[in-house]
Amino acid sequence: MSWSSWLAEEAAARQAAGLTRWLVPRPADDDVIDLAGNDYLGLARDPRVRAAAASAAETWGGGAGASRLVTGTLDLHAELEAELAAWTGHDAALVLSTGYAANLAVVTGLVGRDCHVVSDAHVHASLVDAARLSRARLTITPHNSVSAVVEALASSAPGERTMVLAESIYSVLGDEGPLVELARACEEAGALLVVDEAHGLGVHGAGVVQRLGLAGLPHVLVTATLSKALGSQGGAVLGTPAVVEHLVNRARPFIFDTALAPAAAGAALEALRIARADPSLAACVRSRVLDLAAVLGVEPPDGAVLSVPMPSPQVAVAARDACLEAGVRVGCFRPPSVPDGISRLRVTVSAGVPEDAWTRAVETLVAVVKEHR
Amino acid sequence: MSWSSWLAEEAAARQAAGLTRWLVPRPADDDVIDLAGNDYLGLARDPRVRAAAASAAETWGGGAGASRLVTGTLDLHAELEAELAAWTGHDAALVLSTGYAANLAVVTGLVGRDCHVVSDAHVHASLVDAARLSRARLTITPHNSVSAVVEALASSAPGERTMVLAESIYSVLGDEGPLVELARACEEAGALLVVDEAHGLGVHGAGVVQRLGLAGLPHVLVTATLSKALGSQGGAVLGTPAVVEHLVNRARPFIFDTALAPAAAGAALEALRIARADPSLAACVRSRVLDLAAVLGVEPPDGAVLSVPMPSPQVAVAARDACLEAGVRVGCFRPPSVPDGISRLRVTVSAGVPEDAWTRAVETLVAVVKEHR
Ligand SMILES: Cc1ncc(COP(=O)(O)O)c(C=O)c1O
Ligand SMILES: Cc1ncc(COP(=O)(O)O)c(C=O)c1O
Repeated sequence: MSWSSWLAEEAAARQAAGLTRWLVPRPADDDVIDLAGNDYLGLARDPRVRAAAASAAETWGGGAGASRLVTGTLDLHAELEAELAAWTGHDAALVLSTGYAANLAVVTGLVGRDCHVVSDAHVHASLVDAARLSRARLTITPHNSVSAVVEALASSAPGERTMVLAESIYSVLGDEGPLVELARACEEAGALLVVDEAHGLGVHGAGVVQRLGLAGLPHVLVTATLSKALGSQGGAVLGTPAVVEHLVNRARPFIFDTALAPAAAGAALEALRIARADPSLAACVRSRVLDLAAVLGVEPPDGAVLSVPMPSPQVAVAARDACLEAGVRVGCFRPPSVPDGISRLRVTVSAGVPEDAWTRAVETLVAVVKEHR
Repeated sequence: MSWSSWLAEEAAARQAAGLTRWLVPRPADDDVIDLAGNDYLGLARDPRVRAAAASAAETWGGGAGASRLVTGTLDLHAELEAELAAWTGHDAALVLSTGYAANLAVVTGLVGRDCHVVSDAHVHASLVDAARLSRARLTITPHNSVSAVVEALASSAPGERTMVLAESIYSVLGDEGPLVELARACEEAGALLVVDEAHGLGVHGAGVVQRLGLAGLPHVLVTATLSKALGSQGGAVLGTPAVVEHLVNRARPFIFDTALAPAAAGAALEALRIARADPSLAACVRSRVLDLAAVLGVEPPDGAVLSVPMPSPQVAVAARDACLEAGVRVGCFRPPSVPDGISRLRVTVSAGVPEDAWTRAVETLVAVVKEHR
């Protein structure tokens, strides 16, 4: 088939299925209450974080100018890495340009064809892509099933290096992974556990892995993003110096990528300091999550994102639009972004929403959900 | 083998081969003349670009707060996309968080198992990874061989969608791809040509593709990075609205990744405007490239990076260190970053180096290269 007819056919199929998505640019300031993003602690727009980003850009320039190994490593990156490691309880950290790149780097930098990757069925697209790209043998285990992971680990050939992929807080269902059990199983099997803390870091203080006492164990590696609770852009790998040294030398998505821009590094560093110093931010998220889940009649998630199942992608979109009409921006999950095909309204709780706006937002949500479910 | 012994063995093997690399953080200001990065036009540190980055961070926050489809698309992204498309002569543009992500998105978003990818042997790691990840059938053609590409195209099954991967300016050898011939071959075969302009955009004004009159053709797609001549961070796909719409809906590295941070988008936009308004920047790069190649006795490259072959990785490192000792920072290419295994000194010409510093740098380079080659 020709490229142009293929593109046209694909577009028509999307349209017919009600699955076409488009980009809606937003202005810098509007009156809409934002419950759609991942700025969990409200730090992306915090004046201190804005100022830190601006000051880093003034000091260091618009970009780092090169990949990390060539000449793109700034003192600012080193400082950010040191504070990330110290905060989360690891001995070393490596900052990358995105969380996506961090996941690609960790997996493709450590496993290859002769290895075994055991992945929870709900891990993020970046980990799925990473596992594929690594060419390792892949076993996908049912969501949060420790016994399936144990069984998969037992199927590793003797000496076959094995990596288990999980998240601390899963993005769609918002539930926590059984990390203590997974870490124990990995230790027994000589496997490496990689935990993506994209939605855990900041929302759970220094992260779920740290809270559970798993940080710093040689068989537990963490990836994180600087683009959610830390209000910036970028990603990080947290682990042992040996792992970081290996990734610096071998991980293509790290080696062949321009270093994180100074403003993003500066913003993340300031956000980390604020989150570390002020536990009330995470506490606010938690209490709002519990309140909102109660009034919407859904299970409270372990993270900051509430999922409200909707009967169809079209109804999910209609409910989202009704919220926006009423001044509240929420997201929706539709195929292909959902592991189980169920469309959902996606409501992010953020400590950055002022109290009165939060009250209004909750009222709106209750009304819209009642009408559409 | 256990993870820890594997890591130790790998590290020891690197050490023994003289291939261990490590990160060397640099301060915001030193007296070193930087001929190592990719800030070809000197825009990363241009006061206007710094100010634009700072102002975008102040206006929009430290991060975009979400993926592009959720709520991370800012008016600023839309503006940047419009100006990128207009400048380079395309009808549409899509901005991503890195150039790496742009390459992953374009390839994995458009081809799959049932497709054929024909790739020049020297394309960047991000395109190699993208082709792998796509699971398309892959044919690698000798560097810059049009006849090999024609032959590979002829081997596509009837109706097998085919994509050809090339760069406008190759990063290691610095030579230009035979883009006119490749575009013709692709048109005849009904294939899509993807040209990575990472090292062409800005150095060659609005890019090599635009200069050659290939921009805007339906069978020619361009990827670019905002992190080299545009002095920022980020990537872009330039093409038709149909392709962009498709990527927005289907490309996982776009969909599942936080939007480019405001400061980076603001910096890139300002840099684009400066590069567009001031052709003397690209002209300065060109004349310095020709002068330096002449005094070093190497072929002048088509881009801004001169490669000076060195007898071994160790000598390349020694020469690099000697330059730094003398106040000039250059890079070096060593395995695994070189397609042919030959280690090289890598000298970036930048319009951002003041005239007197440039003269000193040339003298240093001539002396060091003479001593080490
Ligand atoms: C679980 C998870 N991991 C990784 C990522 C990628 O991080 P980033 O957006 O910083 O690339 C995301 C979201 O974007 C995520 O939800
Ligand atoms: C040819 C080429 N393409 C893509 C990239 C990736 O771009 P970025 O560093 O913006 O991710 C690079 C260099 O980093 C490159 O040299």
